[in-house]
Amino acid sequence: MKKVGIIMGSDSDLPIITKATDMLKELQIPFEVHVYSAHRTPIEAKEFSENAAKNGFGVLIAAAGMAAHLAGAVAANTTLPVIGIPCSSSNLDGMDALLSTVMMPTGIPVATVAINGGGNAALLAAQILALTDEALAQKLIDKRKKDAQKVLEKDKKISESFK
Amino acid sequence: MKKVGIIMGSDSDLPIITKATDMLKELQIPFEVHVYSAHRTPIEAKEFSENAAKNGFGVLIAAAGMAAHLAGAVAANTTLPVIGIPCSSSNLDGMDALLSTVMMPTGIPVATVAINGGGNAALLAAQILALTDEALAQKLIDKRKKDAQKVLEKDKKISESFK
Amino acid sequence: MKKVGIIMGSDSDLPIITKATDMLKELQIPFEVHVYSAHRTPIEAKEFSENAAKNGFGVLIAAAGMAAHLAGAVAANTTLPVIGIPCSSSNLDGMDALLSTVMMPTGIPVATVAINGGGNAALLAAQILALTDEALAQKLIDKRKKDAQKVLEKDKKISESFK
Amino acid sequence: MKKVGIIMGSDSDLPIITKATDMLKELQIPFEVHVYSAHRTPIEAKEFSENAAKNGFGVLIAAAGMAAHLAGAVAANTTLPVIGIPCSSSNLDGMDALLSTVMMPTGIPVATVAINGGGNAALLAAQILALTDEALAQKLIDKRKKDAQKVLEKDKKISESFK
Amino acid sequence: MKKVGIIMGSDSDLPIITKATDMLKELQIPFEVHVYSAHRTPIEAKEFSENAAKNGFGVLIAAAGMAAHLAGAVAANTTLPVIGIPCSSSNLDGMDALLSTVMMPTGIPVATVAINGGGNAALLAAQILALTDEALAQKLIDKRKKDAQKVLEKDKKISESFK
Amino acid sequence: MKKVGIIMGSDSDLPIITKATDMLKELQIPFEVHVYSAHRTPIEAKEFSENAAKNGFGVLIAAAGMAAHLAGAVAANTTLPVIGIPCSSSNLDGMDALLSTVMMPTGIPVATVAINGGGNAALLAAQILALTDEALAQKLIDKRKKDAQKVLEKDKKISESFK
Amino acid sequence: MKKVGIIMGSDSDLPIITKATDMLKELQIPFEVHVYSAHRTPIEAKEFSENAAKNGFGVLIAAAGMAAHLAGAVAANTTLPVIGIPCSSSNLDGMDALLSTVMMPTGIPVATVAINGGGNAALLAAQILALTDEALAQKLIDKRKKDAQKVLEKDKKISESFK
Amino acid sequence: MKKVGIIMGSDSDLPIITKATDMLKELQIPFEVHVYSAHRTPIEAKEFSENAAKNGFGVLIAAAGMAAHLAGAVAANTTLPVIGIPCSSSNLDGMDALLSTVMMPTGIPVATVAINGGGNAALLAAQILALTDEALAQKLIDKRKKDAQKVLEKDKKISESFK
Repeated sequence: MKKVGIIMGSDSDLPIITKATDMLKELQIPFEVHVYSAHRTPIEAKEFSENAAKNGFGVLIAAAGMAAHLAGAVAANTTLPVIGIPCSSSNLDGMDALLSTVMMPTGIPVATVAINGGGNAALLAAQILALTDEALAQKLIDKRKKDAQKVLEKDKKISESFK
Repeated sequence: MKKVGIIMGSDSDLPIITKATDMLKELQIPFEVHVYSAHRTPIEAKEFSENAAKNGFGVLIAAAGMAAHLAGAVAANTTLPVIGIPCSSSNLDGMDALLSTVMMPTGIPVATVAINGGGNAALLAAQILALTDEALAQKLIDKRKKDAQKVLEKDKKISESFK
Repeated sequence: MKKVGIIMGSDSDLPIITKATDMLKELQIPFEVHVYSAHRTPIEAKEFSENAAKNGFGVLIAAAGMAAHLAGAVAANTTLPVIGIPCSSSNLDGMDALLSTVMMPTGIPVATVAINGGGNAALLAAQILALTDEALAQKLIDKRKKDAQKVLEKDKKISESFK
Repeated sequence: MKKVGIIMGSDSDLPIITKATDMLKELQIPFEVHVYSAHRTPIEAKEFSENAAKNGFGVLIAAAGMAAHLAGAVAANTTLPVIGIPCSSSNLDGMDALLSTVMMPTGIPVATVAINGGGNAALLAAQILALTDEALAQKLIDKRKKDAQKVLEKDKKISESFK
Repeated sequence: MKKVGIIMGSDSDLPIITKATDMLKELQIPFEVHVYSAHRTPIEAKEFSENAAKNGFGVLIAAAGMAAHLAGAVAANTTLPVIGIPCSSSNLDGMDALLSTVMMPTGIPVATVAINGGGNAALLAAQILALTDEALAQKLIDKRKKDAQKVLEKDKKISESFK
Repeated sequence: MKKVGIIMGSDSDLPIITKATDMLKELQIPFEVHVYSAHRTPIEAKEFSENAAKNGFGVLIAAAGMAAHLAGAVAANTTLPVIGIPCSSSNLDGMDALLSTVMMPTGIPVATVAINGGGNAALLAAQILALTDEALAQKLIDKRKKDAQKVLEKDKKISESFK
Repeated sequence: MKKVGIIMGSDSDLPIITKATDMLKELQIPFEVHVYSAHRTPIEAKEFSENAAKNGFGVLIAAAGMAAHLAGAVAANTTLPVIGIPCSSSNLDGMDALLSTVMMPTGIPVATVAINGGGNAALLAAQILALTDEALAQKLIDKRKKDAQKVLEKDKKISESFK
Repeated sequence: MKKVGIIMGSDSDLPIITKATDMLKELQIPFEVHVYSAHRTPIEAKEFSENAAKNGFGVLIAAAGMAAHLAGAVAANTTLPVIGIPCSSSNLDGMDALLSTVMMPTGIPVATVAINGGGNAALLAAQILALTDEALAQKLIDKRKKDAQKVLEKDKKISESFK
């Protein structure tokens, strides 16, 4: 099974990344985590991205805040699908990171998820890998059902409480 | 080879979709195009999404403007990867569609590309399908090289013109 | 008397919903509360909306955050008036939910109130039901007078305090 | 049948209002149109709103741009449901009008529709009036079906064109 | 000497208003404070504004949050200069109040100061009244000098601390 | 009678200024117009502002776009009331100029009007000067009535056209 | 004299770049112009930046639109001062490019100028080079005087026209 | 060696400035710090800027919040490079200061760094001064390496922790 490569631009993004790794563990998808900055360690970021395909990665996830170039820089060096997580920082609520991640020019797409959306980045990676992994596809379908079930249990409890 | 399913919320989004279909044709990826509105034809949108996996689709692309619910509505009914294209409309420059598409809650990811980013939506779909299609992967690598070459030709011409 | 149906997309929206239910209790309007997610339980959300009219509901209220599709998804399945409450979440201060709720395309209106405006959603529902309920109409007129009175009492106290 | 009262803050909003009146005509709902400015003719705006209920109106629609106070000013003088249409003007794309219309304080709700959403304002008024008008309710259901049909026809044509 | 009339839309705006009244006290300018809501007590807000000129007021200050119509509603009922203070509330950081206050249509100006700018609203009122009050004009000039002096003292202390 | 001093930061703002001068002419208020840039001619801008009071000006109006510092720079050099007009330029729709003009720190207020609000800047200046000019005060009251009359004429015409 | 290196991310940014090259020509500063995309030609962008110092460049200017990573990517590969020009594109008015360019994390600064600010980018480069070039410093002082003179001539003409 | 002149508009900006002075101390670059307000002490701000070149300064840094005119006012009085730091204040998250600082008209550039970007302002100043200071240039290169090393150490630690 192909691995998911996760890169964060700064270790301050770790809580967001942990939402992703928790999801991948739950789905038993192998992954690697790295801290590479598009600006402070451009060489390592580039090398990781360039070699990702041949090193057994199937999808890359990049999380960064502010002028969040990481996902785009990774995407520029691979044709693997790259998922970008815009992270909020102390100002602007993540709007800077969102626009820096999603507004990529034609030629180099970044699959952008919600601000701080670590969990969904992992789920999207799983959905991509599940295209050729029946067992994983089934896990995703099961997870959807469980998620729906949780909502319905809350519905039951809360709708009762208002009667 | 799995097909790409493309849905637009309104036929006014056709110019954006054409950027996607042109790219898919260039890459020789089979696709189907539909007009289904999340709000005006919710049943058809749901049925298409629910049956997409068993009907041979591998990736879905959904394009919509304003309160752009289409990609999310599609994603809610499949575990295939869903790519969302936020389309600009007469007001707000597509910011409404961007936020409506990208800010999905945990559980149901949408891989969002740039506002009006039809070409990149198709490329992202191709990158996903290329994970298990060597020939397509090679086409994407070749396309990258060609794109780079075009930039370098422009560089040559423009840098000369300033000498 | 027709009931008000209230749906929240997540139980984290409960404090907003409580502002609505408190108002409905004060006005003695019958209501039901549910937790249905447009994305995680699309089937239940759809069924509730589709059957709302024949189940005795006169107005529906839907509250959701982020890419807030719930009100629009409900509105797509009923011709009852649907009131949308955009809820703020951890980023973007509710602007994402506001645009996702209010910018509906022609054909499927959502009567949007202020971000986190649970109280006003209930009042708007009451105003709609009061069109054919003289007693309720009178209660609303009385409430307006009482609200005005409260402002004038504050005015008296505060204007005195500055003399 | 109760009438719909439509007020625009300036005659420059007439194209938006016409989308509303066209819809009301199609649904055979009686209406009146006025030009009253919250700021330039506050007395007339107030008198119209205060007397709307006893003059046979069931729903009021108010359209204004910029610091769009009209819907709120109308709502402050009646307990009829008031629908606000934020109109875009030469700057800010209607964002000023949207926030001025939708962000009403608790006590005085305004049912806000999309920027320039004249058609949906009328539909929302119709949905409200249809609560006690079976024939109108049926017309709305039929219209939904017709709208869906139009989308499906476009789908057929466009999906064919890509084959 | 003409009085300054201060109106707040809600007693939650009192901290902002206190910045204004402190400044007026410092400048020994007579003032009155009221709580009138444009929406909950439109009649009182109107009457106060209409009669302000003949009741000895020279300038009016209106502070409100969210869809902040108060300053505009006051301005619509007087030709006295009206100063608007947009107040921040729990969402949107006061941007809604700023746009609702400043974007007035031609004919009814509101002299808008910064979000939560209570002190400057009072100073602006003083500058207006000082046009025909030499003593007040001198106080404002003296205050400017004192303010500058305070900055220069801070400069001295801080620039020293870095030597 | 005191004069109104009008400064624009660039001659590209002339159309906005003309809305102001037309209004002042209509009200027969004397005025002077200048082009002084806060950045390109800071000395002249400062000298004009410093000497404005003794040169017979009662109110100053400053119009500028982009990082619109002009009104603030003028206000820093006089205790006369200063009215700021934020002008829209080729990007950002005037939002940059609005925030640069209105968000002044305590001590130096700028009475900000709407983006491109030349007419209202002049009216506000007139309202200030009218505090000690009965004839002008009456003109302003008459103008309000005339403006209201125009709205009511439009109301008549348009409301008739829909009958 | 050190050269200014100018890079644009796409040849569509040429009109903005021409404002910069015109200014540099006027100031007789040597420069080179290139088209290198941070995403489509990352290797060439990196090589140019890495070798810029030893190739005789003193300042680099990078212009890009949308998720404008170019200036940051250049800055990551050199310790020469890098000036970023955010370019507006078909949506969002350049706000995406502004935030992507200016919000750089600590360690890698980008000297950002206004959206589409080609002329100021060149002037800023000149001001930097003038630190060790007396003749250029004098040219900049002279240019300032000439710019001021132009404003004063416009002032004269326009202020006369209103007399 | 030329000094860096640092001006803050208010002593509340001191924490931001300290990030700059810490960086300058680390790089052993001489500097002076001042508190001068563009609005409250325009004369001192002007005099400092006008005389900065002859007083041995090579680069100026100006930090201010809200309608942040300081950097532009400084830049208007010198042809030295001026670096602007937009500071966030209690509302709008620094967006007001960013636009007021960066959107300068042609002729007077301000080299703008990120909101609250004190460290990068100092680094940019250092990069400018390093153009003619080999030792400083080497320090900057070494610092880059050390920064990269820190990221790689974090990478090692965090990537291990996930194994």
